[in-house]
Amino acid sequence: MATTGKQLFTTLDADGTLTVEVAEVSFPDPTGNQVLVKMEAAPINPSDLALLFGPADIANAECSPGKLIAKMPEPFLSGAKGRHGQRLPVGNEGAGTVVAAGDSEMAQALVGQRVACVPGTAYAQYAIADANLCLPLGDVSAEDGASAFVNPMTSLAFVECAKRDGQKAIIHAAAASNLGQMLNRICQEDGIDLVNIVRKQEQVDLLKSQGAKWVVNSSDGDFMKQLCAAIDATDAFYGFDPIGGGTTTDACFKAMERVAVSKMSEYNRYGSNQQKQMFIYGRLDLGPTILTPSYGFGWTLSGWLLTPFLATAGMETVMRMRKRVLDYLTTTFASNYKAKVTLEEMLQKDAAVEYHAMKTGEKYLITPWG
Amino acid sequence: MATTGKQLFTTLDADGTLTVEVAEVSFPDPTGNQVLVKMEAAPINPSDLALLFGPADIANAECSPGKLIAKMPEPFLSGAKGRHGQRLPVGNEGAGTVVAAGDSEMAQALVGQRVACVPGTAYAQYAIADANLCLPLGDVSAEDGASAFVNPMTSLAFVECAKRDGQKAIIHAAAASNLGQMLNRICQEDGIDLVNIVRKQEQVDLLKSQGAKWVVNSSDGDFMKQLCAAIDATDAFYGFDPIGGGTTTDACFKAMERVAVSKMSEYNRYGSNQQKQMFIYGRLDLGPTILTPSYGFGWTLSGWLLTPFLATAGMETVMRMRKRVLDYLTTTFASNYKAKVTLEEMLQKDAAVEYHAMKTGEKYLITPWG
Repeated sequence: MATTGKQLFTTLDADGTLTVEVAEVSFPDPTGNQVLVKMEAAPINPSDLALLFGPADIANAECSPGKLIAKMPEPFLSGAKGRHGQRLPVGNEGAGTVVAAGDSEMAQALVGQRVACVPGTAYAQYAIADANLCLPLGDVSAEDGASAFVNPMTSLAFVECAKRDGQKAIIHAAAASNLGQMLNRICQEDGIDLVNIVRKQEQVDLLKSQGAKWVVNSSDGDFMKQLCAAIDATDAFYGFDPIGGGTTTDACFKAMERVAVSKMSEYNRYGSNQQKQMFIYGRLDLGPTILTPSYGFGWTLSGWLLTPFLATAGMETVMRMRKRVLDYLTTTFASNYKAKVTLEEMLQKDAAVEYHAMKTGEKYLITPWG
Repeated sequence: MATTGKQLFTTLDADGTLTVEVAEVSFPDPTGNQVLVKMEAAPINPSDLALLFGPADIANAECSPGKLIAKMPEPFLSGAKGRHGQRLPVGNEGAGTVVAAGDSEMAQALVGQRVACVPGTAYAQYAIADANLCLPLGDVSAEDGASAFVNPMTSLAFVECAKRDGQKAIIHAAAASNLGQMLNRICQEDGIDLVNIVRKQEQVDLLKSQGAKWVVNSSDGDFMKQLCAAIDATDAFYGFDPIGGGTTTDACFKAMERVAVSKMSEYNRYGSNQQKQMFIYGRLDLGPTILTPSYGFGWTLSGWLLTPFLATAGMETVMRMRKRVLDYLTTTFASNYKAKVTLEEMLQKDAAVEYHAMKTGEKYLITPWG
């Protein structure tokens, strides 16, 4: 029995041509601990967009039914040399129904069940997934379960990291995102103070309406003052930045140091002894990260990804996190989408331009069967 | 008995006027575990210059005997708000003879001995120092012992950190400095591969004449190729950068990632799994640090200072490091100076401009008694 269906692929050629297209393919039979999932819903996350489009010029793309062709600018074209000429599947996560399974007991037990999964090939009508990483959804719909992995586990992981590092407060940038709203709920549940950085008044209002105590607006003239006040009140010397480029992380370090110095009785040429830590976990801004020499030497900045975190967190921690996600999938870990599109519709210019902008509140959900 | 003598002070006023002057002062009697050291030699290190002049406009300074007045530009003037109006002593380290001591046995035992010390007030004819941190020099001259602390302990600490973190190779930038030459000798003694980054052919030649195996020249057209080749051969994914501003650290991360990706069989949108770590331990360039989004998320960049390292390294490690420095002070840990100046001479324009430029091979030594 060969299962056929549609799947989306992205190909970047060495001449800078990016081709994203829907193709009819034949899916392999699942073996061992694999399951074949009939995919019903999959979100378009920033981490998917990095592979799907990257920083290609979508505004000037050529779109035809089921196909989008755009130009990739330098230096990103050369930077992605490793993928030149390769036809790559896309889609970290999604949800659907298990229609076939390999021999293993765990895989067989999932047949007929609706599951959330992380196949890496979720933008398709079918996907082969690892039964180990499937989350049975029970009564939860595929749309509600589609984002059960990336954002929930990432936001929970931030709190895990903070607790492990002895922190009782976190700074989060681009904080009105789906992930940011989850983090806001988790922190309230866990008694962690969260300093939310947003860039619009409506995002301040949104997060405050969801119980956020500390929301600072980077578009306000007194942004640094707001940020310092929030850090002073919470002792948040630990933060996560999905913007990456520009000065968001720099502003956090500056504000942390300003607060720490204000509590010192004597001048120290090297700055405060307060350790300051930031993590860049995304690249909403692909420009360079700018770090000014204005907060001494007591700081650490790291790149952060979910997969390496999970690999080192230990099975017990990961299982506890997964259980919490499943238990509160439609409350703490609920996601919102601006629009639903098919595989073909997601390659239409208007839609592509909109979700490629990764604006807060404009996340798309793919429903590959329409 | 009040001991009087000359001492150098630096004062930055809120209006941007930096005044550095020699004054006749009265030194207090040592108490408890303190000793009074008649200072005979003290080096001008970059870490001293940060406090002495900072980024003030020395080229246009007004100099009169024993006094230098310069303007401090923004944003550094505001950034140093904590010191506005304060008359601060300068000089991390130096060497001299103990002429008086407090009551403690340890302090009393040092009377009459030549010692290296870290008073923080070394640019003076006398200084109060902590007997705990004094290193008896025996037959070693004060000039040879003047730099027994900052550079030797820092370069040794880099190797301690690398070993603790399981590394067998280190990258070092501005590698022809006094500190860099020490690190080159330590690494050869300890079997650690060292990738030296310099910016002149004569520095390549200098380090190679001292046995360095890997020296790459950032002024060469094929710098990145040289750097990648050295990393490939040594597995140096761990480095120290005293430049801070600009793209030195970025170039190291890029080269590390290029080497790691070249060993991968499959494209990964997130980059390699190779952890890459850099430390900024100085600010020879006061411009912002630039980090481009071209090496995934598997990297960590930290500020690094000797004092916090020593505070966490444990007494046993620190004692072992100090013993090694003392045993090899005139070989492994020897420093070179371009010129010797008195406290008054160091405030003459030509000298000040030259040592303020912190060029490799142009370190000055202060001999406060002439």
